[in-house]
Amino acid sequence: MAETRTSPAPSSATAAPQPDAAAAAPAPRPSKVPKTERGRRTLRALLNAAAEEFGEKGFHDAAISQITARAGVATGSFYVYFDSKEAIFQALVRDLSGQVKDFVGPSIAAAPNQLAAESAGQLAYLNFVRQHKEIYRIIDESEFVDPAAYREHYTNSAARIAARLEAAAQRGEISAGDSEVRAWAIMGMNVFLGLRFGVWGDEAPEGVVQEAGRLLAHGLSSPSANAEEPA
Amino acid sequence: MAETRTSPAPSSATAAPQPDAAAAAPAPRPSKVPKTERGRRTLRALLNAAAEEFGEKGFHDAAISQITARAGVATGSFYVYFDSKEAIFQALVRDLSGQVKDFVGPSIAAAPNQLAAESAGQLAYLNFVRQHKEIYRIIDESEFVDPAAYREHYTNSAARIAARLEAAAQRGEISAGDSEVRAWAIMGMNVFLGLRFGVWGDEAPEGVVQEAGRLLAHGLSSPSANAEEPA
Repeated sequence: MAETRTSPAPSSATAAPQPDAAAAAPAPRPSKVPKTERGRRTLRALLNAAAEEFGEKGFHDAAISQITARAGVATGSFYVYFDSKEAIFQALVRDLSGQVKDFVGPSIAAAPNQLAAESAGQLAYLNFVRQHKEIYRIIDESEFVDPAAYREHYTNSAARIAARLEAAAQRGEISAGDSEVRAWAIMGMNVFLGLRFGVWGDEAPEGVVQEAGRLLAHGLSSPSANAEEPA
Repeated sequence: MAETRTSPAPSSATAAPQPDAAAAAPAPRPSKVPKTERGRRTLRALLNAAAEEFGEKGFHDAAISQITARAGVATGSFYVYFDSKEAIFQALVRDLSGQVKDFVGPSIAAAPNQLAAESAGQLAYLNFVRQHKEIYRIIDESEFVDPAAYREHYTNSAARIAARLEAAAQRGEISAGDSEVRAWAIMGMNVFLGLRFGVWGDEAPEGVVQEAGRLLAHGLSSPSANAEEPA
């Protein structure tokens, strides 16, 4: 339950499947990977500044000069790492995916079983998006600015969830089923709960996660219907 | 299970709650409502042409002259109904919401109980989006072109689902629970299943709906866990 939509890719306690080489990279892929600690700090500052700039203004109105000003680095430094506004936007989408995964992952890994893990991951995710509301707008805009990055983001997120579900089913913690359908359903749940209760709303996330956890564990069936086996 | 995200608003078998007056209008709200059958045909042609134009080119590259050319009407006719490109885009978002609702609604109304209704609505929805793949792009772009229409679309869709769930819980067809959280979770499921299996994929929708229906009815719990009551 840690995935997202207009939002980042959630976490995985187990090794993530890697549909393609690009998907394997949790970190941004700048034109040049910094070799020094100072270089890594500059790259980090540029990506953080890009999140602010794109989040506030959207892609078209964002400016490289404003990104470098927010980051406190010279314009020339930008081009050490990125060729264009498009390039840093693409790197930012991958960076945000990786940030959520890194933030949510430990909660998932620490949970005693898969249902608890999905709820723990969802709670961490809701808390993360509240602190980074700009991620929804940025990931959503990637559908238009960089459709391949948008599709990769969700495809990879769903693949990680599906892998978790399959492992849990093999351990007998959850029922068997079509992991891909389930993964896309769970990702959609998380993205929309994050939009409503992380970006737009101020309700306490614990109650949201508790109710969503019941839905994910037991479904909507009434107690009498629950006595039946799943069809 | 008939709602959506980057996609239209699903259906309701029961009367939809109407959070505000605008939400009550299933039809587009052009500058002037046509009084004649011919006027209604022209308006319909303009909205269909707008769906093609915005779906193919996106908002910024779309042109009123291309919309009227696709519709086969004179440019002057456009301004009888709409003041601007923004105005027809806003009307189109509402029109698409209404189209899905009208398409999915009868399937929901005909189902014998609420769980069957959600699955029937989802199947109808998947079939609809396959035939109208442009709706995802258009609704998604409304987040940037017309944020109020975007938020209204999802808020109204969730309110319709929540009303269905509350009525079903009162009839004893489903368990009691927080209808708003459940509605956003179900809407998210439907939107992402529609994206993956309606817009991007060619798999037969029946299997997707069957698996999602099991998840919605019974959750992920393993058979032994299912013997417990919901927490």
